[in-house]
Amino acid sequence: MVAVSTSSLASAASPAPGDRHDDVGRRAAAVDLLGLLAYAQIVAFERLAEDSRIAPQLADKAALGRLAVAEFSRFERVAEYVARLGCTVEVAMRPFVGAFDEYQAKTAPADWLESLVKTYVGDGIARDFYREMARALDPDAYQLVTEVLSDTGHAEFAVARVRGAIATDPTVAGRLALWARRLVGEAITQAQHVASERPALVAVLFAGRSDDGAHRPDPGAVFAPLLDAHRARMAALGLAA
Amino acid sequence: MVAVSTSSLASAASPAPGDRHDDVGRRAAAVDLLGLLAYAQIVAFERLAEDSRIAPQLADKAALGRLAVAEFSRFERVAEYVARLGCTVEVAMRPFVGAFDEYQAKTAPADWLESLVKTYVGDGIARDFYREMARALDPDAYQLVTEVLSDTGHAEFAVARVRGAIATDPTVAGRLALWARRLVGEAITQAQHVASERPALVAVLFAGRSDDGAHRPDPGAVFAPLLDAHRARMAALGLAA
Repeated sequence: MVAVSTSSLASAASPAPGDRHDDVGRRAAAVDLLGLLAYAQIVAFERLAEDSRIAPQLADKAALGRLAVAEFSRFERVAEYVARLGCTVEVAMRPFVGAFDEYQAKTAPADWLESLVKTYVGDGIARDFYREMARALDPDAYQLVTEVLSDTGHAEFAVARVRGAIATDPTVAGRLALWARRLVGEAITQAQHVASERPALVAVLFAGRSDDGAHRPDPGAVFAPLLDAHRARMAALGLAA
Repeated sequence: MVAVSTSSLASAASPAPGDRHDDVGRRAAAVDLLGLLAYAQIVAFERLAEDSRIAPQLADKAALGRLAVAEFSRFERVAEYVARLGCTVEVAMRPFVGAFDEYQAKTAPADWLESLVKTYVGDGIARDFYREMARALDPDAYQLVTEVLSDTGHAEFAVARVRGAIATDPTVAGRLALWARRLVGEAITQAQHVASERPALVAVLFAGRSDDGAHRPDPGAVFAPLLDAHRARMAALGLAA
């Protein structure tokens, strides 16, 4: 197995907008993005298992355990793909551990409901972002990313539980809406940290799209649909965005 | 699906030693023992995922996640079997939640090493006990129990990590040996609580064996092999039993 040094990406010269990226650059970008995604999946797995632990109902424990297992099996798929690119998933994940762990530490949920909202809303916007970024990768890498980011059933689970809690106690809605806003703010802060440390990754991901060759240099064009999807998730929960 | 009331078991008259147990009694005992096992599996899954979260190395996170997933898939097998006996796994688990959660609360590991020892030593002796008890069930239930209690790879993982830690710092051994002794003491306390609340379960499990019809009324004959296996695990870790 040939090891790809992911740190070489950060020191590579940023390509000018419109450049056709060489295979090495795109492969390194794929390793980076998939490493980020893999670590997000491990953390999601651990958090779903923790939600299982604190679930008030036994039936919910089993349901959350099942979601955690589904998340881990998707991590395994990403890890296998990264290995085929010539890199261990541990090496690929390492650059993103600090930012991720800091986000987790700053957004520790106070209870089960906050944790459900964190996974549905916070992870939801992150997943949309990863999917959007993955358009710059090879079609098979993009295909993998869309498959492992599809909903495993958590959305329905979270919406039902949060709506049920608000129906029982309407004051919950205000607290959870504030919480969701804080999550998004912290996620943006950490995304900026990652972007500033991996400038070449950002350059590759924003410079071109591999599927149709079209360029979307305007970040607004990338972020507008993410915000629409975010608002839709807030509305599904019955929360003010 | 016909619901089996597990509480009916506790109020059933204890059979005299040597009685051949009717199907209803044995089915209720199976539901009880499998409910206990299922909840132990969910808790083990949650703890392995928590061990993944606090693992010092990224490679260990993935390995522990894999062990957690294996544990959960075994829970699913037990839950399916309990459903075939006409009871939901949630109903079967419920009588054991209190004792289990109390055991977990009283044996919260201070660090990753203590958690590895807890799973290997504490869960190890509990698993041997479940397997021994399951001899009183129908052969296919016994077969299921032996299969879902077989080692998924945690033993090797824990032994390597604990021995490595002791090699680095020999003073760790004394602390972990004391910890293991406390775990076994707490486990016995909780087992006594369960036994006192489920006397009919205990009567069925100790009164006869379904595989060969032989009786083993002497608890010493049941517990001696458990203690031997416990000492072997302590020795494997390099700890004084």
